[in-house]
Amino acid sequence: MNTLGGSGLGAAMDAAAKGVEATLEGLLPKPHGLHGRIHEAMRYATFAGGKRLRPFLVLQCAGLFDVTGTPALRTAAAIEVLHTYSLVHDDLPCMDDDDLRRGRPTTHKAFDEATAVLAGDALLTVAFEILAGAQTHPSAEVRCQLVARLAEAAGCNGMIGGQMIDMVASGSHFGAEEVIELQRLKTGQLFEFSCEAGAILAEAGPEHQGRLRRYARDMGLIFQITDDLLDVTSTAEKTGKAVGKDREHGKATLVSIYGVEGARAEAEKIAARAAAELAPYGAKAAALRDLLPFLLTRDA
Amino acid sequence: MNTLGGSGLGAAMDAAAKGVEATLEGLLPKPHGLHGRIHEAMRYATFAGGKRLRPFLVLQCAGLFDVTGTPALRTAAAIEVLHTYSLVHDDLPCMDDDDLRRGRPTTHKAFDEATAVLAGDALLTVAFEILAGAQTHPSAEVRCQLVARLAEAAGCNGMIGGQMIDMVASGSHFGAEEVIELQRLKTGQLFEFSCEAGAILAEAGPEHQGRLRRYARDMGLIFQITDDLLDVTSTAEKTGKAVGKDREHGKATLVSIYGVEGARAEAEKIAARAAAELAPYGAKAAALRDLLPFLLTRDA
Repeated sequence: MNTLGGSGLGAAMDAAAKGVEATLEGLLPKPHGLHGRIHEAMRYATFAGGKRLRPFLVLQCAGLFDVTGTPALRTAAAIEVLHTYSLVHDDLPCMDDDDLRRGRPTTHKAFDEATAVLAGDALLTVAFEILAGAQTHPSAEVRCQLVARLAEAAGCNGMIGGQMIDMVASGSHFGAEEVIELQRLKTGQLFEFSCEAGAILAEAGPEHQGRLRRYARDMGLIFQITDDLLDVTSTAEKTGKAVGKDREHGKATLVSIYGVEGARAEAEKIAARAAAELAPYGAKAAALRDLLPFLLTRDA
Repeated sequence: MNTLGGSGLGAAMDAAAKGVEATLEGLLPKPHGLHGRIHEAMRYATFAGGKRLRPFLVLQCAGLFDVTGTPALRTAAAIEVLHTYSLVHDDLPCMDDDDLRRGRPTTHKAFDEATAVLAGDALLTVAFEILAGAQTHPSAEVRCQLVARLAEAAGCNGMIGGQMIDMVASGSHFGAEEVIELQRLKTGQLFEFSCEAGAILAEAGPEHQGRLRRYARDMGLIFQITDDLLDVTSTAEKTGKAVGKDREHGKATLVSIYGVEGARAEAEKIAARAAAELAPYGAKAAALRDLLPFLLTRDA
C-alpha cells in the first residue's frame, strides 16, 4: 500500500480501519465452550490487517448524508466479515489453493480445511445477524433492505456468480465484455453494496443509491485493473500474496486483453467517470474522490 | 421412511413437501448466464427428495396460530435451503467425505468441490434474502426477527458450533452431557428455529416461542437418537447414505453411551415430555404430536 502519511484519505482510511476493528472486536464472540476453535478461526481470518476498503466506503458514503456512529460501523463490520468469508473460502485448496494471505498462512493452513469451511460459513452468517440487529438502525425496514441487498450482492447472481464465472473462465477465451461482467459480479457487487449502504442507512432515496452504485462499480473496475496489473508487475513480498497466477492459469484479464498501458488508460478514463458521480456531494466526498487516483497508483 | 399411508401425519408431511418444493421452484433462479452452473448445483442439492421435516415443522407450528400461505411457505423454504447448504458442506471431502446422499451422488461428486463450496454458500445466502423479502411478512420487525434468529441458530454458537464440536469430538471421551450439547447445537438449533418461526410469524409472544422451542429441542434429540440407532442397526440401502460411520470414527453417541435399549428408553421418555408441551394447542397440534412416535420408530 502507498504511504498516505498525513493526507485526508490516509487519515480517513486509518480511522475506518480502527473503527471497524473495534466494532468487530465487540461483535465476534471470544473463544469459549467446546467449540472455541470456530471462534478462534473466525478471529484469525478477520483480524489479519488488510486495507478495510469496504468499511471505509460504507463510512464515507454514510457520511455524505451525515450518518455516523453505530449504524454505519455495524454495517461496515457486516460487509467486512462477509468479505473475509469470501477470502477464506477462495483460498481453499479446491478453489484458488493459496497458502499465503496478507503475508500470513491462510485460514486452512493455520487451522485445517474443515475449520476454514466452517469459519467462512460462520462469518457469512454473522454478517446477516449484525445487519438484522436492532442497533444497526431504528427502522426495521432499513435493516431488512440492508439484509436483502447484501444477500443479493453476495449471492449466486452477485459475488458467488462472479466466482463461478471465474472458475469457468480458466482456459476459455473471454473478451473484454465477459471479463468486465465477471469482475462486476466477483468484486464489484460488494463495493456497490458498501457504497449504497450509506444511502440506505440515510433513507436518501433511489437517486442517491443509483449514483453511489455507479461510483462503486467504476471504483471496483479500477481496483480490479490495478490488481491485475500488480499480478503482472509486482512481487509476492510487496503484495503479501502469490502473484503471476492469472497468467499461469491462462486467465483473461483486462490487462491480458488491453495490454499494460491500454489497461492503465482504461482505468484513468473510468476514474474520471466515477469522480463525476460525486459532484453533488462537494467537500464531503473528498476522501471518496481521492480514493480514485490512490487506487490507480497503488503498488500493493 | 415408514409408510404413512392415509394417516394425518403422512398427509401433512406430503403437503409440506409439495408446498415448499413449489415455493423453492419459484425462489431459486433458473440456470442462466455465464454462471449457470451455480444455479444448477443449487437446484441439484435442493431438489433431491428428502423428508422436508423442517418445512413441515414451520408450517405446522405456524398453523397452530392460523398463519398459512406465503409467509409460512417462504419461511419454510428459507430453512430448507439453509439445511441443504449444511448438507452440501458437510459432505465435502474435508468434512464427512460422503459420496452418497439420499441415494444420489453428493453435490461435489455430481459437480466438483469448488462448485459445491460455492453452491452451499449461495444457498446459505439466499435463505436470508428470502426471509428479508417483503412477501415473507408485512411487518419488517418480524422479518428482522426471523433473520436474526435463523442466523443465531445456524451460526458459530448454533449449528456451526455443533459441527465444530463434532469434529473435535472424534476420538475424545464425551459423556452424555457433551453429546447432548453437541446435538442440541448441530441438529437441534435448526429444529428450534423451524418451530419458533411459527410463533414469530404469528407475533404470538415469548411464552409460545419458548414452548415450541422446548418441543423442538426434545424432538431434535429423538431425531438424533434414532439417527444414531439407524447408524448401528440399518443398512445403506434403507437409509440412502453410508452407515456405521460413527463407530468407525470412534464417535461417542447416546447409543454408544446408553446402549441400544437404553437409548430407546431415553428417547421414549423425551417424547412424553415433548408431547406435554403441545397440550395448549389441542387438535391443531395433532400432526406435531404424531411426529414423535413416528420418529421413534422410523427405519430410514
